[in-house]
Amino acid sequence: MNKKLYFPKVAIIGVGLIGGSLAIALKEKKLCGSIAGVGRGPKNLKAAKRLGLIDSFTTDIKEGVKGADLVVVAVPVLSILRVIKEALPFLKKGCIVTDAGSVKDAIVRGVEKVMPDGVFFVAGHPIAGTENSGAGAAVQGLFKGRKCILTPTPRTDKRALKQVKKLWEAAGSDVVFMAPKKHDKVLAAVSHLPHVVAYTLVNTVSDMEKKGGGLVKYSAGGFKDFTRVASSSPAMWRDVCGMNKDAIVKVMEAFEKRLGKLKSLIKKGELSKIEKTFERAKRVRDSIKR
Amino acid sequence: MNKKLYFPKVAIIGVGLIGGSLAIALKEKKLCGSIAGVGRGPKNLKAAKRLGLIDSFTTDIKEGVKGADLVVVAVPVLSILRVIKEALPFLKKGCIVTDAGSVKDAIVRGVEKVMPDGVFFVAGHPIAGTENSGAGAAVQGLFKGRKCILTPTPRTDKRALKQVKKLWEAAGSDVVFMAPKKHDKVLAAVSHLPHVVAYTLVNTVSDMEKKGGGLVKYSAGGFKDFTRVASSSPAMWRDVCGMNKDAIVKVMEAFEKRLGKLKSLIKKGELSKIEKTFERAKRVRDSIKR
Repeated sequence: MNKKLYFPKVAIIGVGLIGGSLAIALKEKKLCGSIAGVGRGPKNLKAAKRLGLIDSFTTDIKEGVKGADLVVVAVPVLSILRVIKEALPFLKKGCIVTDAGSVKDAIVRGVEKVMPDGVFFVAGHPIAGTENSGAGAAVQGLFKGRKCILTPTPRTDKRALKQVKKLWEAAGSDVVFMAPKKHDKVLAAVSHLPHVVAYTLVNTVSDMEKKGGGLVKYSAGGFKDFTRVASSSPAMWRDVCGMNKDAIVKVMEAFEKRLGKLKSLIKKGELSKIEKTFERAKRVRDSIKR
Repeated sequence: MNKKLYFPKVAIIGVGLIGGSLAIALKEKKLCGSIAGVGRGPKNLKAAKRLGLIDSFTTDIKEGVKGADLVVVAVPVLSILRVIKEALPFLKKGCIVTDAGSVKDAIVRGVEKVMPDGVFFVAGHPIAGTENSGAGAAVQGLFKGRKCILTPTPRTDKRALKQVKKLWEAAGSDVVFMAPKKHDKVLAAVSHLPHVVAYTLVNTVSDMEKKGGGLVKYSAGGFKDFTRVASSSPAMWRDVCGMNKDAIVKVMEAFEKRLGKLKSLIKKGELSKIEKTFERAKRVRDSIKR
Protein backbone atom coordinates (compact mmCIF):
# COMPACT_ATOMS: atom_id res chain seq x y z
CA MET A 1 0.00 0.00 0.00
CA ASN A 2 2.76 2.40 0.92
CA LYS A 3 6.40 1.76 0.09
CA LYS A 4 7.77 3.92 2.87
CA LEU A 5 5.73 2.30 5.66
CA TYR A 6 7.66 -0.70 6.90
CA PHE A 7 8.61 -1.75 10.42
CA PRO A 8 11.22 -4.53 10.38
CA LYS A 9 10.45 -5.48 13.97
CA VAL A 10 7.15 -4.83 15.75
CA ALA A 11 6.33 -5.55 19.39
CA ILE A 12 2.70 -5.74 20.45
CA ILE A 13 2.18 -5.56 24.18
CA GLY A 14 -1.26 -7.01 24.91
CA VAL A 15 -2.27 -9.33 22.07
CA GLY A 16 -6.04 -9.17 22.62
CA LEU A 17 -8.91 -8.02 20.45
CA ILE A 18 -7.25 -4.72 19.46
CA GLY A 19 -3.59 -5.78 19.47
CA GLY A 20 -4.37 -9.05 17.69
CA SER A 21 -6.56 -7.42 15.05
CA LEU A 22 -3.86 -4.84 14.35
CA ALA A 23 -1.34 -7.69 13.98
CA ILE A 24 -3.59 -9.24 11.33
CA ALA A 25 -3.70 -5.92 9.46
CA LEU A 26 0.10 -5.45 9.73
CA LYS A 27 0.73 -8.87 8.22
CA GLU A 28 -2.01 -8.62 5.62
CA LYS A 29 -0.67 -5.30 4.34
CA LYS A 30 2.96 -6.48 4.62
CA LEU A 31 3.89 -3.55 6.83
CA CYS A 32 6.29 -5.45 9.05
CA GLY A 33 9.00 -8.08 9.20
CA SER A 34 8.24 -9.93 12.39
CA ILE A 35 5.87 -9.37 15.29
CA ALA A 36 6.77 -10.22 18.88
CA GLY A 37 3.85 -10.59 21.26
CA VAL A 38 4.30 -9.51 24.86
CA GLY A 39 1.88 -10.35 27.66
CA ARG A 40 1.51 -11.38 31.26
CA GLY A 41 0.42 -14.96 30.71
CA PRO A 42 1.75 -17.49 28.17
CA LYS A 43 -1.68 -19.01 27.52
CA ASN A 44 -3.07 -16.12 25.47
CA LEU A 45 0.30 -15.60 23.78
CA LYS A 46 0.46 -19.26 22.75
CA ALA A 47 -3.00 -18.94 21.26
CA ALA A 48 -1.91 -15.80 19.41
CA LYS A 49 1.10 -17.61 17.94
CA ARG A 50 -1.01 -20.62 16.96
CA LEU A 51 -3.43 -18.26 15.21
CA GLY A 52 -0.52 -16.74 13.29
CA LEU A 53 -1.02 -13.26 14.79
CA ILE A 54 2.55 -13.11 16.12
CA ASP A 55 5.84 -14.78 15.23
CA SER A 56 7.30 -15.06 18.71
CA PHE A 57 6.30 -14.21 22.25
CA THR A 58 7.62 -13.46 25.68
CA THR A 59 6.27 -12.43 29.08
CA ASP A 60 9.33 -10.20 29.56
CA ILE A 61 8.78 -6.64 28.33
CA LYS A 62 12.54 -5.99 28.07
CA GLU A 63 13.07 -8.95 25.81
CA GLY A 64 9.94 -8.24 23.79
CA VAL A 65 10.68 -4.62 22.87
CA LYS A 66 14.41 -5.05 22.27
CA GLY A 67 15.26 -3.85 18.78
CA ALA A 68 11.66 -3.02 17.92
CA ASP A 69 10.95 -0.26 15.38
CA LEU A 70 7.32 -0.04 16.48
CA VAL A 71 5.84 -0.84 19.89
CA VAL A 72 2.05 -1.03 20.12
CA VAL A 73 0.67 -0.93 23.66
CA ALA A 74 -2.78 -2.46 23.67
CA VAL A 75 -3.17 -3.33 27.35
CA PRO A 76 -6.07 -2.16 29.60
CA VAL A 77 -6.14 1.61 29.80
CA LEU A 78 -5.03 1.86 33.44
CA SER A 79 -1.88 -0.21 32.72
CA ILE A 80 -0.71 1.67 29.62
CA LEU A 81 1.43 4.28 31.38
CA ARG A 82 3.09 1.69 33.64
CA VAL A 83 3.83 -0.61 30.70
CA ILE A 84 5.34 2.20 28.64
CA LYS A 85 7.52 3.27 31.58
CA GLU A 86 8.71 -0.30 31.97
CA ALA A 87 9.57 -0.57 28.29
CA LEU A 88 11.30 2.82 27.89
CA PRO A 89 14.84 1.90 29.07
CA PHE A 90 15.02 -0.90 26.50
CA LEU A 91 13.78 0.90 23.39
CA LYS A 92 16.18 1.44 20.54
CA LYS A 93 16.77 4.91 19.11
CA GLY A 94 14.10 5.87 16.57
CA CYS A 95 11.51 3.52 17.98
CA ILE A 96 7.88 4.64 17.71
CA VAL A 97 5.57 3.81 20.60
CA THR A 98 1.81 4.03 20.19
CA ASP A 99 -1.14 2.94 22.30
CA ALA A 100 -4.84 2.19 21.91
CA GLY A 101 -6.26 3.46 25.20
CA SER A 102 -9.77 4.89 25.36
CA VAL A 103 -8.68 7.75 27.66
CA LYS A 104 -5.86 9.98 26.43
CA ASP A 105 -4.98 13.06 28.47
CA ALA A 106 -3.61 11.27 31.55
CA ILE A 107 -1.60 8.89 29.38
CA VAL A 108 -0.16 11.60 27.14
CA ARG A 109 0.85 13.78 30.07
CA GLY A 110 2.36 10.84 31.91
CA VAL A 111 4.33 9.58 28.93
CA GLU A 112 5.60 13.02 27.85
CA LYS A 113 7.10 13.50 31.31
CA VAL A 114 9.35 10.47 30.94
CA MET A 115 9.95 10.09 27.18
CA PRO A 116 13.66 10.32 26.38
CA ASP A 117 14.98 12.00 23.23
CA GLY A 118 15.16 9.87 20.13
CA VAL A 119 12.17 7.70 21.03
CA PHE A 120 8.74 8.82 19.85
CA PHE A 121 5.29 8.49 21.36
CA VAL A 122 2.07 8.88 19.38
CA ALA A 123 -1.13 8.42 21.39
CA GLY A 124 -4.05 6.78 19.64
CA HIS A 125 -7.53 5.42 20.12
CA PRO A 126 -9.06 3.16 17.48
CA ILE A 127 -12.82 3.36 18.01
CA ALA A 128 -13.60 -0.27 17.38
CA GLY A 129 -14.39 -3.27 19.45
CA THR A 130 -16.74 -6.10 20.18
CA GLU A 131 -17.89 -7.61 23.47
CA ASN A 132 -15.25 -10.33 23.09
CA SER A 133 -11.67 -10.23 24.31
CA GLY A 134 -8.39 -12.12 24.05
CA ALA A 135 -6.32 -13.17 21.04
CA GLY A 136 -9.12 -15.48 19.92
CA ALA A 137 -11.35 -12.45 19.43
CA ALA A 138 -8.98 -10.80 16.94
CA VAL A 139 -10.52 -10.43 13.50
CA GLN A 140 -9.54 -9.23 10.07
CA GLY A 141 -11.02 -5.86 9.15
CA LEU A 142 -11.89 -4.80 12.72
CA PHE A 143 -10.75 -1.23 12.02
CA LYS A 144 -12.18 -0.94 8.54
CA GLY A 145 -14.34 2.16 8.16
CA ARG A 146 -13.91 2.99 11.85
CA LYS A 147 -12.59 6.23 13.24
CA CYS A 148 -9.15 6.19 14.82
CA ILE A 149 -8.36 9.27 16.89
CA LEU A 150 -4.72 10.27 17.28
CA THR A 151 -4.00 12.89 19.92
CA PRO A 152 -0.74 14.67 19.07
CA THR A 153 0.61 17.54 21.16
CA PRO A 154 3.22 20.18 20.21
CA ARG A 155 5.81 17.73 21.53
CA THR A 156 4.77 14.91 19.19
CA ASP A 157 7.30 14.10 16.48
CA LYS A 158 5.82 14.94 13.09
CA ARG A 159 7.41 12.04 11.25
CA ALA A 160 6.32 9.51 13.87
CA LEU A 161 2.79 10.92 13.79
CA LYS A 162 2.70 10.49 10.02
CA GLN A 163 3.87 6.90 10.30
CA VAL A 164 1.22 5.99 12.89
CA LYS A 165 -1.44 7.74 10.82
CA LYS A 166 -0.42 5.66 7.79
CA LEU A 167 -0.45 2.52 9.91
CA TRP A 168 -4.09 2.98 10.95
CA GLU A 169 -5.09 4.07 7.47
CA ALA A 170 -3.55 0.89 6.13
CA ALA A 171 -5.72 -1.00 8.62
CA GLY A 172 -8.73 0.70 7.05
CA SER A 173 -9.38 3.39 9.66
CA ASP A 174 -10.46 6.94 9.10
CA VAL A 175 -7.80 8.82 11.09
CA VAL A 176 -8.65 12.05 12.92
CA PHE A 177 -6.37 14.29 15.00
CA MET A 178 -7.66 15.76 18.23
CA ALA A 179 -6.12 17.33 21.34
CA PRO A 180 -6.00 14.79 24.22
CA LYS A 181 -8.38 16.80 26.44
CA LYS A 182 -10.83 17.24 23.58
CA HIS A 183 -10.72 13.50 22.90
CA ASP A 184 -11.56 12.77 26.51
CA LYS A 185 -14.46 15.24 26.49
CA VAL A 186 -15.90 13.81 23.28
CA LEU A 187 -15.60 10.21 24.45
CA ALA A 188 -17.04 11.09 27.86
CA ALA A 189 -20.18 12.20 26.04
CA VAL A 190 -20.62 9.60 23.31
CA SER A 191 -19.22 6.57 25.09
CA HIS A 192 -18.52 6.90 28.81
CA LEU A 193 -21.81 8.61 29.75
CA PRO A 194 -23.95 6.04 27.89
CA HIS A 195 -22.20 3.22 29.74
CA VAL A 196 -22.57 4.88 33.13
CA VAL A 197 -26.24 5.55 32.39
CA ALA A 198 -26.91 2.00 31.18
CA TYR A 199 -25.36 0.49 34.30
CA THR A 200 -27.45 2.85 36.45
CA LEU A 201 -30.62 2.07 34.55
CA VAL A 202 -30.19 -1.65 35.07
CA ASN A 203 -29.47 -1.14 38.77
CA THR A 204 -32.54 1.07 39.18
CA VAL A 205 -34.77 -1.61 37.68
CA SER A 206 -33.02 -4.23 39.77
CA ASP A 207 -33.71 -2.22 42.98
CA MET A 208 -37.42 -2.34 42.17
CA GLU A 209 -37.13 -6.00 41.25
CA LYS A 210 -35.94 -6.73 44.77
CA LYS A 211 -38.99 -5.06 46.24
CA GLY A 212 -40.89 -7.84 44.50
CA GLY A 213 -41.69 -6.94 40.97
CA GLY A 214 -40.35 -9.63 38.71
CA LEU A 215 -39.83 -6.67 36.40
CA VAL A 216 -37.02 -7.87 34.28
CA LYS A 217 -39.12 -10.53 32.61
CA TYR A 218 -41.48 -7.86 31.27
CA SER A 219 -38.68 -5.98 29.61
CA ALA A 220 -39.35 -5.54 25.94
CA GLY A 221 -36.92 -4.80 23.14
CA GLY A 222 -36.28 -1.24 24.28
CA PHE A 223 -34.79 -2.13 27.63
CA LYS A 224 -32.74 -4.96 26.17
CA ASP A 225 -31.26 -2.90 23.34
CA PHE A 226 -30.75 -0.01 25.63
CA THR A 227 -28.94 -1.90 28.33
CA ARG A 228 -26.81 -4.22 26.21
CA VAL A 229 -23.78 -2.04 26.97
CA ALA A 230 -24.30 -2.83 30.67
CA SER A 231 -22.84 -6.23 29.84
CA SER A 232 -19.46 -4.61 29.15
CA SER A 233 -16.44 -5.35 31.34
CA PRO A 234 -16.89 -3.74 34.80
CA ALA A 235 -13.10 -3.62 35.30
CA MET A 236 -12.53 -1.77 32.03
CA TRP A 237 -15.23 0.78 32.76
CA ARG A 238 -14.04 1.21 36.34
CA ASP A 239 -10.64 2.18 34.92
CA VAL A 240 -12.16 4.56 32.39
CA CYS A 241 -14.14 6.24 35.21
CA GLY A 242 -10.93 6.55 37.20
CA MET A 243 -8.90 7.99 34.35
CA ASN A 244 -11.45 10.31 32.80
CA LYS A 245 -13.09 11.44 36.02
CA ASP A 246 -13.39 15.17 35.36
CA ALA A 247 -14.87 14.93 31.88
CA ILE A 248 -17.27 12.17 32.93
CA VAL A 249 -18.49 14.04 36.02
CA LYS A 250 -19.03 17.16 33.91
CA VAL A 251 -21.11 15.38 31.28
CA MET A 252 -23.04 13.51 33.99
CA GLU A 253 -23.95 16.89 35.45
CA ALA A 254 -25.17 18.15 32.09
CA PHE A 255 -27.23 14.99 31.73
CA GLU A 256 -28.68 15.33 35.26
CA LYS A 257 -29.69 18.90 34.50
CA ARG A 258 -31.53 17.90 31.32
CA LEU A 259 -33.19 14.94 33.03
CA GLY A 260 -34.31 17.17 35.91
CA LYS A 261 -35.87 19.61 33.44
CA LEU A 262 -37.71 16.81 31.66
CA LYS A 263 -38.92 15.44 34.98
CA SER A 264 -40.42 18.77 35.91
CA LEU A 265 -42.12 19.01 32.50
CA ILE A 266 -43.63 15.55 33.08
CA LYS A 267 -44.69 16.51 36.61
CA LYS A 268 -46.43 19.61 35.31
CA GLY A 269 -47.95 17.73 32.38
CA GLU A 270 -46.41 20.10 29.82
CA LEU A 271 -47.14 17.78 26.93
CA SER A 272 -46.19 19.99 24.01
CA LYS A 273 -42.84 20.89 25.59
CA ILE A 274 -42.21 17.20 26.29
CA GLU A 275 -42.94 16.37 22.67
CA LYS A 276 -40.55 19.09 21.46
CA THR A 277 -37.80 17.63 23.65
CA PHE A 278 -38.37 14.16 22.23
CA GLU A 279 -38.60 15.46 18.65
CA ARG A 280 -35.25 17.19 18.99
CA ALA A 281 -33.63 13.97 20.21
CA LYS A 282 -35.24 11.94 17.45
CA ARG A 283 -33.91 14.32 14.80
CA VAL A 284 -30.36 14.04 16.14
CA ARG A 285 -30.58 10.26 16.56
CA ASP A 286 -32.05 9.72 13.10
CA SER A 287 -29.11 11.66 11.64
CA ILE A 288 -26.64 9.01 12.84
CA LYS A 289 -26.02 6.48 10.16
CA ARG A 290 -26.30 2.91 11.29
CA MET B 1 -57.37 -24.18 18.57
CA ASN B 2 -60.32 -23.72 20.89
CA LYS B 3 -63.85 -24.59 19.92
CA LYS B 4 -65.50 -22.15 22.28
CA LEU B 5 -63.48 -19.13 21.13
CA TYR B 6 -65.29 -17.61 18.19
CA PHE B 7 -66.40 -14.04 17.51
CA PRO B 8 -68.85 -13.85 14.59
CA LYS B 9 -68.21 -10.14 14.15
CA VAL B 10 -65.06 -8.30 15.20
CA ALA B 11 -64.39 -4.57 14.99
CA ILE B 12 -60.82 -3.30 15.16
CA ILE B 13 -60.54 0.39 15.83
CA GLY B 14 -57.08 1.45 14.70
CA VAL B 15 -55.77 -1.00 12.10
CA GLY B 16 -52.07 -0.30 12.55
CA LEU B 17 -49.14 -2.45 13.60
CA ILE B 18 -50.91 -3.94 16.65
CA GLY B 19 -54.52 -3.99 15.38
CA GLY B 20 -53.47 -5.28 11.97
CA SER B 21 -51.22 -7.99 13.38
CA LEU B 22 -54.01 -9.15 15.68
CA ALA B 23 -56.35 -9.27 12.66
CA ILE B 24 -53.86 -11.59 10.94
CA ALA B 25 -53.85 -13.87 14.01
CA LEU B 26 -57.67 -13.86 14.28
CA LYS B 27 -58.02 -14.95 10.66
CA GLU B 28 -55.15 -17.41 10.76
CA LYS B 29 -56.61 -19.17 13.82
CA LYS B 30 -60.16 -18.92 12.46
CA LEU B 31 -61.39 -17.14 15.57
CA CYS B 32 -63.80 -14.83 13.82
CA GLY B 33 -66.38 -14.46 11.07
CA SER B 34 -65.69 -11.04 9.68
CA ILE B 35 -63.51 -8.11 10.73
CA ALA B 36 -64.55 -4.50 10.29
CA GLY B 37 -61.76 -1.96 10.38
CA VAL B 38 -62.47 1.46 11.87
CA GLY B 39 -60.17 4.44 11.55
CA ARG B 40 -59.95 8.17 10.97
CA GLY B 41 -58.64 8.13 7.43
CA PRO B 42 -59.67 5.87 4.54
CA LYS B 43 -56.13 5.58 3.16
CA ASN B 44 -54.78 3.26 5.85
CA LEU B 45 -58.09 1.35 5.95
CA LYS B 46 -57.97 0.78 2.19
CA ALA B 47 -54.47 -0.57 2.53
CA ALA B 48 -55.63 -2.85 5.36
CA LYS B 49 -58.45 -4.21 3.20
CA ARG B 50 -56.12 -4.69 0.23
CA LEU B 51 -53.74 -6.62 2.50
CA GLY B 52 -56.63 -8.85 3.59
CA LEU B 53 -56.41 -7.79 7.23
CA ILE B 54 -60.05 -6.66 7.33
CA ASP B 55 -63.20 -7.49 5.37
CA SER B 56 -64.82 -4.07 5.44
CA PHE B 57 -64.06 -0.64 6.77
CA THR B 58 -65.60 2.62 7.85
CA THR B 59 -64.51 5.90 9.38
CA ASP B 60 -67.71 5.96 11.46
CA ILE B 61 -67.29 4.31 14.87
CA LYS B 62 -71.04 3.81 15.26
CA GLU B 63 -71.29 1.91 12.00
CA GLY B 64 -68.11 -0.03 12.66
CA VAL B 65 -68.98 -1.44 16.08
CA LYS B 66 -72.66 -2.16 15.34
CA GLY B 67 -73.38 -5.82 16.05
CA ALA B 68 -69.78 -6.59 16.97
CA ASP B 69 -69.07 -9.40 19.45
CA LEU B 70 -65.52 -8.19 20.03
CA VAL B 71 -64.20 -4.64 19.75
CA VAL B 72 -60.41 -4.20 19.81
CA VAL B 73 -59.26 -0.64 20.44
CA ALA B 74 -55.72 -0.27 19.14
CA VAL B 75 -55.48 3.50 18.75
CA PRO B 76 -52.79 5.73 20.36
CA VAL B 77 -52.94 5.45 24.14
CA LEU B 78 -54.27 8.97 24.76
CA SER B 79 -57.26 8.36 22.44
CA ILE B 80 -58.35 5.00 23.84
CA LEU B 81 -60.72 6.32 26.51
CA ARG B 82 -62.36 8.80 24.12
CA VAL B 83 -62.82 6.15 21.43
CA ILE B 84 -64.36 3.67 23.87
CA LYS B 85 -66.75 6.35 25.16
CA GLU B 86 -67.75 7.14 21.60
CA ALA B 87 -68.41 3.49 20.82
CA LEU B 88 -70.31 2.57 24.03
CA PRO B 89 -73.83 3.68 23.04
CA PHE B 90 -73.72 1.47 19.95
CA LEU B 91 -72.40 -1.77 21.41
CA LYS B 92 -74.66 -4.78 21.46
CA LYS B 93 -75.34 -6.64 24.68
CA GLY B 94 -72.62 -9.17 25.48
CA CYS B 95 -69.97 -7.34 23.47
CA ILE B 96 -66.41 -7.60 24.78
CA VAL B 97 -64.21 -4.50 24.46
CA THR B 98 -60.47 -4.75 24.86
CA ASP B 99 -57.57 -2.39 24.21
CA ALA B 100 -53.84 -2.50 23.65
CA GLY B 101 -52.66 0.65 25.40
CA SER B 102 -49.25 0.81 27.06
CA VAL B 103 -50.62 2.67 30.11
CA LYS B 104 -53.47 1.02 31.99
CA ASP B 105 -54.63 2.63 35.24
CA ALA B 106 -56.08 5.84 33.78
CA ILE B 107 -57.84 3.89 31.02
CA VAL B 108 -59.29 1.26 33.35
CA ARG B 109 -60.57 3.85 35.82
CA GLY B 110 -62.04 5.97 33.03
CA VAL B 111 -63.76 3.09 31.28
CA GLU B 112 -65.15 1.54 34.47
CA LYS B 113 -66.88 4.82 35.29
CA VAL B 114 -68.91 4.73 32.10
CA MET B 115 -69.28 1.04 31.23
CA PRO B 116 -72.95 0.01 31.12
CA ASP B 117 -74.18 -3.39 32.32
CA GLY B 118 -74.09 -6.20 29.81
CA VAL B 119 -71.04 -4.88 27.96
CA PHE B 120 -67.61 -6.05 29.14
CA PHE B 121 -64.24 -4.33 29.20
CA VAL B 122 -60.94 -6.19 29.55
CA ALA B 123 -57.85 -3.98 29.53
CA GLY B 124 -54.76 -5.38 27.88
CA HIS B 125 -51.23 -4.55 26.78
CA PRO B 126 -49.43 -6.81 24.32
CA ILE B 127 -45.71 -6.14 24.80
CA ALA B 128 -44.70 -6.27 21.19
CA GLY B 129 -43.84 -3.78 18.53
CA THR B 130 -41.40 -2.60 15.96
CA GLU B 131 -40.36 0.91 14.93
CA ASN B 132 -42.84 0.76 12.04
CA SER B 133 -46.48 1.77 12.07
CA GLY B 134 -49.63 1.61 9.97
CA ALA B 135 -51.48 -1.33 8.42
CA GLY B 136 -48.51 -2.02 6.17
CA ALA B 137 -46.40 -2.79 9.25
CA ALA B 138 -48.72 -5.57 10.43
CA VAL B 139 -47.02 -8.96 10.46
CA GLN B 140 -47.85 -12.55 11.17
CA GLY B 141 -46.51 -13.82 14.48
CA LEU B 142 -45.90 -10.38 16.02
CA PHE B 143 -47.19 -11.59 19.40
CA LYS B 144 -45.58 -15.00 19.34
CA GLY B 145 -43.58 -15.66 22.49
CA ARG B 146 -44.26 -12.13 23.75
CA LYS B 147 -45.84 -11.22 27.05
CA CYS B 148 -49.36 -9.83 26.99
CA ILE B 149 -50.42 -8.20 30.25
CA LEU B 150 -54.13 -8.12 31.08
CA THR B 151 -55.12 -5.86 33.97
CA PRO B 152 -58.43 -7.09 35.43
CA THR B 153 -60.05 -5.45 38.45
CA PRO B 154 -62.73 -6.84 40.79
CA ARG B 155 -65.27 -5.36 38.37
CA THR B 156 -63.93 -7.26 35.35
CA ASP B 157 -66.28 -9.97 34.05
CA LYS B 158 -64.65 -13.38 34.56
CA ARG B 159 -65.98 -14.90 31.36
CA ALA B 160 -64.90 -11.95 29.24
CA LEU B 161 -61.45 -12.02 30.84
CA LYS B 162 -61.13 -15.70 29.97
CA GLN B 163 -62.11 -15.02 26.35
CA VAL B 164 -59.58 -12.22 25.93
CA LYS B 165 -56.90 -14.37 27.57
CA LYS B 166 -57.63 -17.16 25.07
CA LEU B 167 -57.54 -14.65 22.22
CA TRP B 168 -54.01 -13.50 23.03
CA GLU B 169 -52.86 -17.02 23.75
CA ALA B 170 -54.17 -18.05 20.33
CA ALA B 171 -52.04 -15.21 18.90
CA GLY B 172 -49.05 -16.85 20.57
CA SER B 173 -48.68 -14.57 23.59
CA ASP B 174 -47.77 -15.54 27.12
CA VAL B 175 -50.62 -13.93 29.06
CA VAL B 176 -50.05 -12.49 32.54
CA PHE B 177 -52.56 -10.82 34.88
CA MET B 178 -51.55 -7.73 36.82
CA ALA B 179 -53.32 -4.92 38.65
CA PRO B 180 -53.47 -1.76 36.50
CA LYS B 181 -51.33 0.31 38.88
CA LYS B 182 -48.75 -2.46 39.14
CA HIS B 183 -48.63 -2.68 35.34
CA ASP B 184 -47.94 1.04 35.11
CA LYS B 185 -45.17 0.84 37.71
CA VAL B 186 -43.50 -2.09 35.98
CA LEU B 187 -43.68 -0.50 32.54
CA ALA B 188 -42.48 2.85 33.90
CA ALA B 189 -39.30 1.05 34.98
CA VAL B 190 -38.58 -1.30 32.07
CA SER B 191 -39.93 0.78 29.21
CA HIS B 192 -40.85 4.39 29.96
CA LEU B 193 -37.71 5.25 31.95
CA PRO B 194 -35.35 3.84 29.29
CA HIS B 195 -37.05 5.95 26.63
CA VAL B 196 -36.96 9.11 28.72
CA VAL B 197 -33.28 8.46 29.49
CA ALA B 198 -32.39 7.76 25.85
CA TYR B 199 -34.03 10.97 24.66
CA THR B 200 -32.17 12.88 27.38
CA LEU B 201 -28.87 11.26 26.55
CA VAL B 202 -29.14 12.23 22.90
CA ASN B 203 -30.09 15.79 23.83
CA THR B 204 -27.14 16.07 26.23
CA VAL B 205 -24.72 15.03 23.51
CA SER B 206 -26.46 17.35 21.09
CA ASP B 207 -26.03 20.31 23.50
CA MET B 208 -22.28 19.69 23.48
CA GLU B 209 -22.35 19.23 19.72
CA LYS B 210 -23.70 22.75 19.37
CA LYS B 211 -20.81 24.17 21.35
CA GLY B 212 -18.70 22.88 18.49
CA GLY B 213 -17.77 19.32 18.99
CA GLY B 214 -18.84 17.33 15.98
CA LEU B 215 -19.35 14.65 18.60
CA VAL B 216 -21.98 12.56 16.97
CA LYS B 217 -19.65 11.34 14.27
CA TYR B 218 -17.37 9.80 16.87
CA SER B 219 -20.15 7.77 18.38
CA ALA B 220 -19.29 4.11 18.42
CA GLY B 221 -21.61 1.13 18.70
CA GLY B 222 -22.51 1.81 22.34
CA PHE B 223 -24.13 5.16 21.74
CA LYS B 224 -25.95 3.97 18.65
CA ASP B 225 -27.38 0.84 20.28
CA PHE B 226 -28.17 2.71 23.38
CA THR B 227 -30.03 5.53 21.74
CA ARG B 228 -31.91 3.63 19.06
CA VAL B 229 -35.10 3.95 21.15
CA ALA B 230 -34.74 7.75 20.86
CA SER B 231 -35.98 7.27 17.30
CA SER B 232 -39.39 6.23 18.65
CA SER B 233 -42.46 8.35 18.03
CA PRO B 234 -42.29 11.60 20.07
CA ALA B 235 -46.10 11.90 20.05
CA MET B 236 -46.59 8.42 21.44
CA TRP B 237 -44.05 8.94 24.22
CA ARG B 238 -45.44 12.37 25.02
CA ASP B 239 -48.80 10.66 25.61
CA VAL B 240 -47.26 7.92 27.74
CA CYS B 241 -45.53 10.60 29.86
CA GLY B 242 -48.84 12.37 30.23
CA MET B 243 -50.79 9.27 31.19
CA ASN B 244 -48.27 7.57 33.45
CA LYS B 245 -46.89 10.70 35.05
CA ASP B 246 -46.71 9.59 38.68
CA ALA B 247 -45.03 6.23 38.09
CA ILE B 248 -42.56 7.74 35.62
CA VAL B 249 -41.61 10.62 37.92
CA LYS B 250 -41.11 8.16 40.77
CA VAL B 251 -38.81 5.88 38.81
CA MET B 252 -36.94 8.90 37.40
CA GLU B 253 -36.27 9.95 40.97
CA ALA B 254 -34.94 6.52 41.87
CA PHE B 255 -32.72 6.67 38.80
CA GLU B 256 -31.47 10.17 39.65
CA LYS B 257 -30.59 9.03 43.15
CA ARG B 258 -28.53 6.08 41.86
CA LEU B 259 -26.83 8.23 39.24
CA GLY B 260 -25.98 10.84 41.87
CA LYS B 261 -24.40 8.17 44.05
CA LEU B 262 -22.34 6.85 41.16
CA LYS B 263 -21.24 10.37 40.27
CA SER B 264 -19.97 10.94 43.77
CA LEU B 265 -18.08 7.62 43.67
CA ILE B 266 -16.45 8.71 40.40
CA LYS B 267 -15.64 12.14 41.84
CA LYS B 268 -13.97 10.54 44.84
CA GLY B 269 -12.21 7.94 42.70
CA GLU B 270 -13.71 5.04 44.67
CA LEU B 271 -12.71 2.52 42.04
CA SER B 272 -13.61 -0.72 43.80
CA LYS B 273 -17.08 0.57 44.71
CA ILE B 274 -17.58 1.69 41.11
CA GLU B 275 -16.60 -1.75 39.88
CA LYS B 276 -19.06 -3.41 42.28
CA THR B 277 -21.86 -1.21 40.98
CA PHE B 278 -21.03 -2.14 37.39
CA GLU B 279 -20.68 -5.82 38.25
CA ARG B 280 -24.11 -5.89 39.82
CA ALA B 281 -25.65 -4.33 36.71
CA LYS B 282 -23.80 -6.73 34.42
CA ARG B 283 -25.10 -9.73 36.38
CA VAL B 284 -28.69 -8.52 36.07
CA ARG B 285 -28.32 -7.63 32.41
CA ASP B 286 -26.64 -10.90 31.51
CA SER B 287 -29.58 -12.74 33.10
CA ILE B 288 -31.99 -11.35 30.51
CA LYS B 289 -32.34 -13.70 27.63
CA ARG B 290 -31.96 -12.13 24.24
